[in-house]
Order: sequence, then structure tokens, then C-alpha cells
Amino acid sequence: MTISVLDSTLRDGAQGERISYSVQDKLHLVETLDELGVTFIEAGNPGSNPKDMEFFKRLKKLRLKHAEVAAFGATRRKDTRPAEDTNLQQLLGACTATVVVFGKASPFQVKEILKADMTENLDMIAETVEFLKANDRDVIFDAEHFFDALREDRDYALKTLEAAASAGASCVALCDTRGGALPSDIKEAVEAARKALPENVALGIHAHDDLGLGIANTLAAVEAGARHVQGTFLGFGERTGNANLSAVIATLELKMGCKVLPEGMLSQLTPTAKRVAEITNITLNPALPYVGQNAFAHKAGMHIDAVIKNPSAYEHIQPETVGNVRVFLMSEVAGRSTIIEKLKKFDPGIEKNSETVALITKKVKEMEHWGYQFEGADGSFELLLRKTIGKYRPFFKLHYYKILGEKPRPDNSQCSFAQIKIEVDDKIEVTAGEGDGPVHALDIALRKALERFYPAVSAVRLIDYKVRVLDASTAARVRVLIESTDGSDTWTTVGVSADIVEASWIAIVDSFEYKFIKDVEKKFRLLL
Amino acid sequence: MTISVLDSTLRDGAQGERISYSVQDKLHLVETLDELGVTFIEAGNPGSNPKDMEFFKRLKKLRLKHAEVAAFGATRRKDTRPAEDTNLQQLLGACTATVVVFGKASPFQVKEILKADMTENLDMIAETVEFLKANDRDVIFDAEHFFDALREDRDYALKTLEAAASAGASCVALCDTRGGALPSDIKEAVEAARKALPENVALGIHAHDDLGLGIANTLAAVEAGARHVQGTFLGFGERTGNANLSAVIATLELKMGCKVLPEGMLSQLTPTAKRVAEITNITLNPALPYVGQNAFAHKAGMHIDAVIKNPSAYEHIQPETVGNVRVFLMSEVAGRSTIIEKLKKFDPGIEKNSETVALITKKVKEMEHWGYQFEGADGSFELLLRKTIGKYRPFFKLHYYKILGEKPRPDNSQCSFAQIKIEVDDKIEVTAGEGDGPVHALDIALRKALERFYPAVSAVRLIDYKVRVLDASTAARVRVLIESTDGSDTWTTVGVSADIVEASWIAIVDSFEYKFIKDVEKKFRLLL
Repeated sequence: MTISVLDSTLRDGAQGERISYSVQDKLHLVETLDELGVTFIEAGNPGSNPKDMEFFKRLKKLRLKHAEVAAFGATRRKDTRPAEDTNLQQLLGACTATVVVFGKASPFQVKEILKADMTENLDMIAETVEFLKANDRDVIFDAEHFFDALREDRDYALKTLEAAASAGASCVALCDTRGGALPSDIKEAVEAARKALPENVALGIHAHDDLGLGIANTLAAVEAGARHVQGTFLGFGERTGNANLSAVIATLELKMGCKVLPEGMLSQLTPTAKRVAEITNITLNPALPYVGQNAFAHKAGMHIDAVIKNPSAYEHIQPETVGNVRVFLMSEVAGRSTIIEKLKKFDPGIEKNSETVALITKKVKEMEHWGYQFEGADGSFELLLRKTIGKYRPFFKLHYYKILGEKPRPDNSQCSFAQIKIEVDDKIEVTAGEGDGPVHALDIALRKALERFYPAVSAVRLIDYKVRVLDASTAARVRVLIESTDGSDTWTTVGVSADIVEASWIAIVDSFEYKFIKDVEKKFRLLL
Repeated sequence: MTISVLDSTLRDGAQGERISYSVQDKLHLVETLDELGVTFIEAGNPGSNPKDMEFFKRLKKLRLKHAEVAAFGATRRKDTRPAEDTNLQQLLGACTATVVVFGKASPFQVKEILKADMTENLDMIAETVEFLKANDRDVIFDAEHFFDALREDRDYALKTLEAAASAGASCVALCDTRGGALPSDIKEAVEAARKALPENVALGIHAHDDLGLGIANTLAAVEAGARHVQGTFLGFGERTGNANLSAVIATLELKMGCKVLPEGMLSQLTPTAKRVAEITNITLNPALPYVGQNAFAHKAGMHIDAVIKNPSAYEHIQPETVGNVRVFLMSEVAGRSTIIEKLKKFDPGIEKNSETVALITKKVKEMEHWGYQFEGADGSFELLLRKTIGKYRPFFKLHYYKILGEKPRPDNSQCSFAQIKIEVDDKIEVTAGEGDGPVHALDIALRKALERFYPAVSAVRLIDYKVRVLDASTAARVRVLIESTDGSDTWTTVGVSADIVEASWIAIVDSFEYKFIKDVEKKFRLLL
């Protein structure tokens, strides 16, 4: 049984408290979810603001492997023809092959909130779907409040679905918009909808987590005949959130025998969850099913003993199945296999029990304890390996840097200053820079100083800069993640310190050094 | 239908990562859960450590209203008689009327982990229950791994239940110890157990959240005949946690017509959740069903408009039913209605079309365009309202601040310095501070300078500090969110700038000013 998945992290996920994406974040999310292999990635209304317009413009340049991005919008307004409705025009402007439109299934909603006529609402649904079909779009229809609607006026609720289906929608998603339904309600309603619609129209489910049943309701719908599931990858969304798709996908595949992701991709579930959290700049909830850091963590001594005898004693699946790892709290086990994979670049025959692997495992653990995180910081991780195995020499020596700053003035002149002194091959360089903040000033000063020795530094452009506060005070340690590019490659580096300037400094230096090493490697390969 | 509830926050909850209670914490938890009116409060093995022994000693002095504390332990060891088993002796020593004992229902567990004989295991269960009954204890038997056991060896699994029941257990709780069961598995298993046991033995359910189905599995068991539910109040526990009892209780009462808590106590659900989080020293997950801060929070402008017309448009119950409140989050998509709601504090009769509303809407939009985000930044938002409507005067005037910094030295001495000059009522104060980073140093210098004029500043403690980079470069703007507390209240403030030091400065100043205003307001209310 194949289930199609629509991930709405970009759209419904943005309704979560404190969730706010830049255009770059959204593009990264699309790439990440596409890599994993979800079927649809739902994005907001292309016309709702300039940010979304830019997103759809830049999206056209991405080449996706598996997923299809779908634009999302409402049915046409009251008393308007579809062709004259600006929202629908903008939906078409997004140039996506599939469009998701939502409409009202509940008489209460039609009368009290929309203040529309009941028949008019059916026309709005039908005409909108027809219009989009006429413009060669595949249409998924979201029936808002369907489960409440069925209780209010069964006939009318089903008529809204039929209106969408007869007008050509290929999928009708039943939405538990208020999140108040129980699995038994869902089951009964999906069965009713299944009977009301022709077989070639797929049924979908869009569940919320207001009762903590978002996942259960989604699975109940599939048991009752739904073949399309909607949610957000980590479950965040309005109020208590949407159905948590990472858990839904894993349970569908592992417990219910469904086919969801492309072959072999389930093991990317946890890395994908980490990446989505990183892009969204939230802490991944450690208690999240399957992908949370604690999903396979054992604390009780008796449980740990049993798990060592046989992991299946207290684990329902093997953590590797979903790309996660078993953790014994207080006595953590590091991911040796990851380290071995990376070391193969330098020593293809490296053994699992070699001293180098043990050394690096120890070093990584120490640094993670201190606040580092090498997931997605490929550049810094390679430098760490090189430093540990002796395949690294520093590109410069820092004598000092000094920062001066004051409160920016209303005239917007730059009020942060940095001075730096470095040494390369016994040559000294002293430079200074002005910037919008201390990190900016220091970045400028360092580039100036390096340029004389390594002109390639000018090709390095910073494309993302993220700051995560590791505990909760102005004296807390911060982790800075920097993504850089030289036009052809992209790499990420990381720095940790109680001082945000130093944390940034570490990540910036790693970024430049990674670039220089990469260039040397390339030249060397050309000589071979 | 009456359902009895066993809360294991003290016992299974303590298996959660980073959860660690003092004896005082445990007693506070008992009082809190008793006040709400759960049926049983499960506590650890009285003999397992001195802390637990002290807990049971001090417990005897508490007079409880509703709940009964139950001690928890294992069935007797292999090859021991119950009367000679120290664990069982200690269980009796707790002097609780009810005792929970767990035993193995799965042949795999008996053979591989316990290394015991299959018949011996049945004897261990029966003899332990008999022994406790002979000592006048009421016994709840927890059948570990029951759902896996049923699949392994159906007859044997049911025999373990029968052994406990015939020996006199009043309740048999079926445990999904690995957390891998689906609601349909649970339903089928509970029905099988129900058939196997005499009617006077109650069936219970003990579910885990490894699939995100802890709540759903508990409800499915009740639908299939269970009358006793186990879990932890906020859902924390080993791995991904236990069934979240606060959600289970609310759904049983509000959606399934069960009687769980004493009459009228459901409205204490959210205050109880806050208290449990506070005692446990964790942040209450804002997305928790029913009791989370966001459970009734609305962000999308269209949803907010609809909820103002009629809350039931996007709420499945009234928040007051569970002691929670409706919240309108500020955001770029939120409309005027949120602003009006907040302005009512100053002008209860404010009209939607008033000039003030238009002015503030414009200001909010401008600031959001610049990178501000007022959703969840209640403190800064109130200050913005006050500044716009003329109900604000600055508490001090800044002459300057200066930052000096250099690369931290390996000796960990503080290498960031700040100097500040402020003026209050024509009095000048110049101070300086050292810190781990520039923001830390500035925070210290400002506190020193303000203390002379506003001693209340020393009560303000920072509990969260978040940094968000708004676009992607070291010269990008950053948004800093600060959450502060003075022990009784909590508030959040926000600052945006291209300079992280200035962004932090804005949020810190807002935080202090909000505290001072709040104190003045409190004094004023006392005068009325």
C-alpha cells in the first residue's frame, strides 16, 4: 500500500509560535525534505507577501529529485469569478504542477465565519477546482473542519467533497481543523467519505494535535482508507501543532507495511529531523518518537543491563533503522561508524578498532560535551580529523585581535571596530576593519590580513550564519554555525564559546582554512 | 464510567532525562497531584535508596484529600521465598495500603533477561501477590511487555495475568513496555485479557510514547474495557516518555464521558501542569495538549478574526474548561484584532476604527518589516503600546556605552569589558563590567548603574536568551529574545539590530523597564 505524504512545515509549520523563516531557510527546507523523498512540499500563498514571491522565484532554479512543491491558497472569494480573483491568479503565478486549495465543509463555518450562502459555498469549491484544472493544475482539495461538519450536517459535508471531486480534484484531504476528533471519529468519517467519492479520487487526512492524537488520527485514517497524509515534519504548527510526519512515516513503514519514502531513505529520518530543526532554529525535542535524542536512551540500570544482553528487551525497533543511535545516559556511546566513514578519505583500510578511531571518538565526545555539534558541520569535522591525524598545518598564526564598540548612532555609521595582527611565514600583517557589529568588523579585518597571502579568501562568501544559545543567560555558551560558498562548493563550520565574537571567530577561521585546503587538494588532483 | 488514574510522575517520570527529585520535590508533587484528585500516586521502591526511605517516612505526616500513594517494586527474586525477599520486606515497610508489583509476561524476557524457568516465573507472580495480600495490601499487578508477550506466546501471556488475579490482585495493568504497539494491537489485547480474567479484577493500561501513540493507546484500552490508566502527568519518562496523563484525563472526561477527577477539578488541570513543571524544574512544553501555553494560541490573522467572531471556529473546547487561556500571538499575518485585545487594558472601550489602533498597526508593521517579532514578546509589546499612546517615560538616559574585547585567553579570564554612563533625574552614574562576552559585560555594567536608582533591578533574573540571525551574513540583522523573571512573573522582550550587542541592549533595557512599570502598577493597585 503506497501512501503519499504532504509536508506542510513551510506553510502550517510557520503558524507555530516563534517560527519564522527567511527565504533561504525555506529553500533549505525544500532541499532537505526533497532529499528524504516526501511526495509534496506545501508552501504558502505566493501572493501573500514579497518574501513568498521571492521564494517561488528562486524555487524555479532548484532541481528536485523526489518531491513536488505545491502552492497553497483558498477557494475563490464570494461574488467573484475565479478568473478575476487575485488570490487564484497568484496561485497560478507560482507555476507549480500541483495546487492545494482549502474550502469550508461546515455549515457553521459557511454561515457564521464566511457569512456566505450554503449553495454559493459549493459553487466556490467547484468553480475554483475547475478553474485550476482548466489551467492544467493537479488539485488537492482541503476540506476544512470536515469532522465537525459531518456531525453538524452529514449530507452537506459530503456534498462539499463531491463538489471538489466532480470538478476534478485528484485528492480530497479531510481536515480536523480544530483538532478535537478521536481516532474512532476519524475512522467512521473516512469510511463515509470513501463511500461518497469515486474510487479514482484519493482521500487524505490533515490532523492536528490538540488532544495529543495527531499521529493516531492520521494512522486511523489510513486504516480506514486514506492514501494521502498531511502534517509537519517535526509536528510544530498552530496551537499544539500538526500531525508529526516523521513519526507517521516511520510507523506507516515499520509497523503497517506501507510504502512511503523511496527505497532505503528511512535511515535518513533522524538526520533529516536534525537538519529541519537546525534550519528552523529550534531545539529538536529530545523526546520526539523515532528521531529524538532520547528515543533510544536508557537510564534505568536494569534496563541498560537488559539492553546490553539484548537490545530488543526495551527497544521496539533498532535505532539504525531510522538513523538514530542507542544512548546509555551517563555513559554515552558515540557514533564510531560515522567517524570511520569520514576517515576512509584519508585511510581507506581503516579498521573499526584502530587507535585513531578511538582517539577521534574521544575528542568528538569531549567537544560535544562542551557544546559542539558536528552534524551538518562538515568543514569543521574534516579539520578536526586532520588535526587529530596530523594532516593539518595552520595557515596563519594569530597574534591578537581587539574589538571596540559603542552604541550605533542614528546616522547608521558603523560603530564596531576590529584590529588584528597575524603572521604567515614570518611575515607580519596588521589590519583593521569597521563593521555593523563586532563579528562583521572582525571578519573584514581578517579577510584584509589574509588576502596578501591567500588571495582565494576573497572568493569565500558567507551564505548563512546561525547562532544558538546553549543554555539560558547572557553568559551562556553560544554555538555559531556558518555556511560558506566559493561559488562551486558549499561547506559549514562551527564554533563554540561563552563569547559570541570568539565562537564566530572559530567558525570563520575554520571556513577559510577549509577553503584553502580544498583548493590545494584540487590542484593536487589535477597533477595526477 | 469511572476510570481510576495512577500517576507515575515520581517513579517512571524519574526515568526521564535530566529529571531528578529531592525528597521535598516528591512531597510537593504528592500534594499537587492529590489536590487535583488523581486516584493513585506511584512512588519508587522504598528500599532502593536512602532518599526514598526518607520520602516514605515524611509521607506519613501528609494528610491527603483524594489520592493514595502506592509503593512500587518487583515480584520476588528467583529461588527465594517472598518472606525472605528484602525487596518485598521494604515494600511492606512503606506502609501504603496499595502496592504495585511488576512481573514478566513475556517468555523472551523470562528466558533471555531473567534467565528463569517459565513455571518458576508464574510462581513468582502468584506467591508475591499472595504474600502482599496476606499482609493486607491491595495489589496492582503490572504485566511487563504484555503486548509483545501476547504475540510471542498467547497462552503463557494470559497465564501470567491469571496467576496474579487468582492470587488476589485487584487490578492487572497491561504494560506496553517497549512502546511499540498500535491502538489496534492494544484493543485486541485488552479484549483478550478481559475474557481471560474474572469480572471483579479491573484491567489497567500502561502505555509509552515511542510511536507518539501513548495517549491514543491509553484511550483505545479504555474503549476496549480497561478501567485503570497509568502514565505521568506531563508525559515525561524513559525514552520518549509515558502516556501524558493530563491529556488522557481531559479527553476521557470531555470527549468520552468518563468520570475521572472529583467534581469541578478539571479546571485545575493547567495550574496543576504548571506546578508539576515548576517542581520538576522543567519548562512546560508550550505545545502540550490542553495545558500548554500555546494550546489555545492563534497566529494566522484569518483564524484570529474567526475566533473573535466565535471561539469555537478554531477551538475544540473552551480554554477555561481546563483552566487555560486563549492567546493571540502577534505576527506579520495577525491583524488589528490582536492589537485591540491588548489595548483594552488601557482603554476598555477602544473601537476597531480608532486612530490609536491604526497608528499602532502601522508601527507594528514597520517594526516587523525591520525584523521585530512581537509574538511571545509581551513585555516589549506592552512598552511599544505605552510609547505610542503616551503612557511611558524613560527610566534613564544613556550617555554612552563602550565595548572592549579581545580573544579569550586559555586561562578563561574574562576578556570582554563594558563601560557605561547613564543619567537619572540629573544624577550621573558611570560604571564598568567584565564578562564572558560583550553582552554579558554590558548587562553587568548596566545593572550596576541602575541599582542605585532602581534596587528592583537586582530581582530580575534572565531565564532564556535566544538569538536569531535574520538574513545570512555576519553583517545581517539579528533578533534577540530575552525571557526574564522576578520570581513571581515572567516576561519576554525583543531587540533587533545589525549589531548583536545593540540588539541585546534593546531587549535588556525593555526587560528592566517592563519590570519597573509592573512594580509601579502593583503598588498603584494596592492603593485602590
